[in-house]
Amino acid sequence: MLKESIYHRPKNQFAYSCHDETVQIMLRTKHLDLNSVTLFYGDPFQFVDNRWVKTSVSMKVSGHDELFDYWLVRIKPPQKRLRYAFELIHNEEKLFFTEKGFCDFVHDDFSAYFCFPFYHKSDSFTAPTWVKETVWYQIFPDRFSNGTTTNDPATTLPWNSTEPTVTTIFGGDLKGVLKKLDYLVDLGITGIYFTPIFKANSNHKYDTIDYFEIDPQFGDKQTFKKLVEECHKKGIRIMLDAVFNHCGKNFLPFQDAILNRNASPYKDWFHFTENQIKEHHYETFSFEKSMPKLNTTNPEVKQYLIDVGQYWIKEFNIDGWRLDVANEVDHQFWREFRQAVKSVKKDVFLVGEVWHDALPWLEGEQFDSVMNYPLTNMLHRFFAYDEINAKQFEYELQSYMHQYPKPQYEMLFNIVGSHDTPRIINIAQMNKKRVKLIKVFQFSFLGTPSIYYGDEIGLTGDQDPGCRKCMVWEEDNQDQEMLTFMKKLIHLRKKYPIMANEGDFKLLAADANKNHLCYSRETKNQLLLVVMNKSAEKQSISLPIDIKNKTILDLWKSEEFAANSSSIDVTLEPYDFSFLLVRQ
Amino acid sequence: MLKESIYHRPKNQFAYSCHDETVQIMLRTKHLDLNSVTLFYGDPFQFVDNRWVKTSVSMKVSGHDELFDYWLVRIKPPQKRLRYAFELIHNEEKLFFTEKGFCDFVHDDFSAYFCFPFYHKSDSFTAPTWVKETVWYQIFPDRFSNGTTTNDPATTLPWNSTEPTVTTIFGGDLKGVLKKLDYLVDLGITGIYFTPIFKANSNHKYDTIDYFEIDPQFGDKQTFKKLVEECHKKGIRIMLDAVFNHCGKNFLPFQDAILNRNASPYKDWFHFTENQIKEHHYETFSFEKSMPKLNTTNPEVKQYLIDVGQYWIKEFNIDGWRLDVANEVDHQFWREFRQAVKSVKKDVFLVGEVWHDALPWLEGEQFDSVMNYPLTNMLHRFFAYDEINAKQFEYELQSYMHQYPKPQYEMLFNIVGSHDTPRIINIAQMNKKRVKLIKVFQFSFLGTPSIYYGDEIGLTGDQDPGCRKCMVWEEDNQDQEMLTFMKKLIHLRKKYPIMANEGDFKLLAADANKNHLCYSRETKNQLLLVVMNKSAEKQSISLPIDIKNKTILDLWKSEEFAANSSSIDVTLEPYDFSFLLVRQ
Repeated sequence: MLKESIYHRPKNQFAYSCHDETVQIMLRTKHLDLNSVTLFYGDPFQFVDNRWVKTSVSMKVSGHDELFDYWLVRIKPPQKRLRYAFELIHNEEKLFFTEKGFCDFVHDDFSAYFCFPFYHKSDSFTAPTWVKETVWYQIFPDRFSNGTTTNDPATTLPWNSTEPTVTTIFGGDLKGVLKKLDYLVDLGITGIYFTPIFKANSNHKYDTIDYFEIDPQFGDKQTFKKLVEECHKKGIRIMLDAVFNHCGKNFLPFQDAILNRNASPYKDWFHFTENQIKEHHYETFSFEKSMPKLNTTNPEVKQYLIDVGQYWIKEFNIDGWRLDVANEVDHQFWREFRQAVKSVKKDVFLVGEVWHDALPWLEGEQFDSVMNYPLTNMLHRFFAYDEINAKQFEYELQSYMHQYPKPQYEMLFNIVGSHDTPRIINIAQMNKKRVKLIKVFQFSFLGTPSIYYGDEIGLTGDQDPGCRKCMVWEEDNQDQEMLTFMKKLIHLRKKYPIMANEGDFKLLAADANKNHLCYSRETKNQLLLVVMNKSAEKQSISLPIDIKNKTILDLWKSEEFAANSSSIDVTLEPYDFSFLLVRQ
Repeated sequence: MLKESIYHRPKNQFAYSCHDETVQIMLRTKHLDLNSVTLFYGDPFQFVDNRWVKTSVSMKVSGHDELFDYWLVRIKPPQKRLRYAFELIHNEEKLFFTEKGFCDFVHDDFSAYFCFPFYHKSDSFTAPTWVKETVWYQIFPDRFSNGTTTNDPATTLPWNSTEPTVTTIFGGDLKGVLKKLDYLVDLGITGIYFTPIFKANSNHKYDTIDYFEIDPQFGDKQTFKKLVEECHKKGIRIMLDAVFNHCGKNFLPFQDAILNRNASPYKDWFHFTENQIKEHHYETFSFEKSMPKLNTTNPEVKQYLIDVGQYWIKEFNIDGWRLDVANEVDHQFWREFRQAVKSVKKDVFLVGEVWHDALPWLEGEQFDSVMNYPLTNMLHRFFAYDEINAKQFEYELQSYMHQYPKPQYEMLFNIVGSHDTPRIINIAQMNKKRVKLIKVFQFSFLGTPSIYYGDEIGLTGDQDPGCRKCMVWEEDNQDQEMLTFMKKLIHLRKKYPIMANEGDFKLLAADANKNHLCYSRETKNQLLLVVMNKSAEKQSISLPIDIKNKTILDLWKSEEFAANSSSIDVTLEPYDFSFLLVRQ
């Protein structure tokens, strides 16, 4: 038994409260090292005849990656209290694993056991349930649609007249979005994530000047109010982008601090360095002097930003905040921010911009979700770049899927690209088939998928500013075939919640040489199989489960058939896929 | 290289902000598996000629246990931002370890690197600094000293007239403590931890009836106020015991709920089960129906308990709260409680009762400290029970000392017994020499040591209620030799802060067969060696460091000598010890 590989520590993904009064317990061991793992557990206060009462339950492997097996079990402690230890069996060898390490017998004295002292629903991860069903659409306001030229700045260029640069303005605005709502409804999306709309200098508006005003180039508050109302009528939620790590240099408090130095009431709103309150002596986002970092530990700044967070919810009824550069702001600020905005609207959605391992922000008391760039990265490397084969993709995915508690995965904001990356079609070297496979994965996986505006009609673009081209509205210049494909995919995800977040996810087969994949989504009554051929060769893929005498519905082709033998082969063209719904 | 053994994940003890703008990074590897570990790191936004700027630094092994080496380094990221990866070398094999796993080359692209996005002092562990110098004394009020018979309940028994039972009352009170302040000052303690003093039914008062009243058997608020003032004058801090997990069944809101059921405004203050608001249908502490569990997610209950927490600080200027059964209360309550009480008195000390691994409460936003029972347990098993030898003790201690971030260890509330365990002399089977060794360890280790009343004069007692005997005040019946020993130990710890929390701790030698120990405490200018012979044989122990030409002060014997050769032997009688202060 490889002791060094064995890991467990409450809480986080290894032991956590679920909503239904159960506690989920996970143990990590070396891949294929153990024959079985049994959990011994009991209530620390329950004794019969002076002997502690304990019970046991087998754990099951929920998945494995290249190095580790992950064993899971879910239990419901009758009094909500729990002490537990693991019995590990490797051939003839038997060990018990406790908080104090390994021992070769199971104690009746629980004092060495791991402790999950009490189940508290209030400590379980609680995110807004509506998000699970949402299909997002990300809009970069200057580039989506110009609804009225009356608010166009003087420097506005004709729509799509040139490649975007870091300074070009094309006149997109809120009225433009209002005018295109029918397009979005027809596409099928149910949530819009707007990159910043507040008053700012740049075209991207990440350098906020006034957090309480809409940038005049995008319209006014009345228009925004109408937009939220119209969207809500059509079942579309609205999420805004909050830039709280830093402001723009024209933010009045910053200008006041620069101007009045020590006399300024705002001198502690920022991080001036070397005891000098003046230009060039302050912390910034990146090395961007136009973006001074806000001092989010200052109570006045906290209150100001919390007021901002509450204002747009109270006055305009927005449904979510995407939090820019969230990982560089202190945790305590986010804890207080969460309490404050949720007190105004309980089910407001909070998504942090965190590109890396986000556990420190996803423990329940800060964010509901993060931008899921680690997944984006895996998808690119497997489906677009051929950097990893299907088996390696499986390992990376499995590893990733055991990093957070399970409920967090349903909330992750799944993107295949954004205003900060090349567009997915460019990532895929203009290979549409690969883009489609990525989209199939994104729309049949746990989480909440988001479409970057224009991806659905084949808009191209390299790294920022290239990826921020104007939306193309002339149908002749849109990729209609891609649009039809996306509509169908969105429709299926909405029609079959098993494909979204209702089904358990399991990777059933991943072939390193042939690069095909098969995974399942499963509920009590249904099983959905997703099969993919990520190769340039036509393939026949055996379904790795027994489906004899079951009726199978091919969701994409809308064909129903019955399986006569226990296994069937699915033949897929290069880069093709299949959705097979099996009725249990 | 044993990949399965390698562990790192921010944040917690593996990567955290220290107070001095540094970030501490730790990596765990298999013991003796690696020749070297180098940290590669840089600022995610710093590029020169389009190449990411990174630097490297060697990591050092700070300790090891039976299975693992722990590698440490502390760095100061110039812009407070940090991306990093580890270069691991095992003979000819070289691997890089990143957030995405292992690879065989170091990337210039940092996107796979681990991320510590920003150093925030506000996210570092901040506990009151006065605690580091405090020597605590735990008083169980009914049993310490009876200052006046006027408040003795009718059932009060003559002092020490019988063995205590779960119901006996002996009349100890606050006036009694006031009268014995000189004794405590003479002993040298600088903090008193009182088990509960609020109005309650039992003799231990863990079944609170009124959180805003002192139990009449202990005195009144005026006396308590005077006690706090007198203690403060003498440099003694006061910590009270808050029982917020549950109340006593005579707590008025509970009685109201039982009486008025659904009509009671307090019906949601508790956890009534099976939709029945009546006796026997509610959650409790343990299975104790006299202790109904409080619903600490109810905003009214939160506010009530926060009011309690603030009241005794504001009105009586207490210095700390020991939080009973803290592990069974939800985390969110503690987060809010901390904010609320620290807003009234910034340096109030919060100690949770958590008997097991306490990381989920020690991440900075909940407690400053916990009752350090895991250490108690190790001390008992090595020094008292001979269950583990010195080497095993070293391994357990090393393992334990890499479980939390370093700053947390200085705050841990180190006890060798309490009102909830047999007394230390009983644990040591009446062997005073073993008790003294335990005390030597406790008083020369990191953390904040506490003496359970009477241990200093050799009071005996088995598991509760035996361990709650009346204090003995007749000098003839006190173990004067033990008292002198304890005074000397306390005096040394206060005189030499290197022995308390100023010195780094390092275990230098632990002999499995001879059961001797040698550890150092080290500052820039001084080195303190503590040598112990935990065996029944006289031993000669070689000091495992070069001390040639250094002057050495034996702190216990107050003898100074110079070392002529590079190593010297210390000869120790059975169960003897030595404190050697080496001037650098």
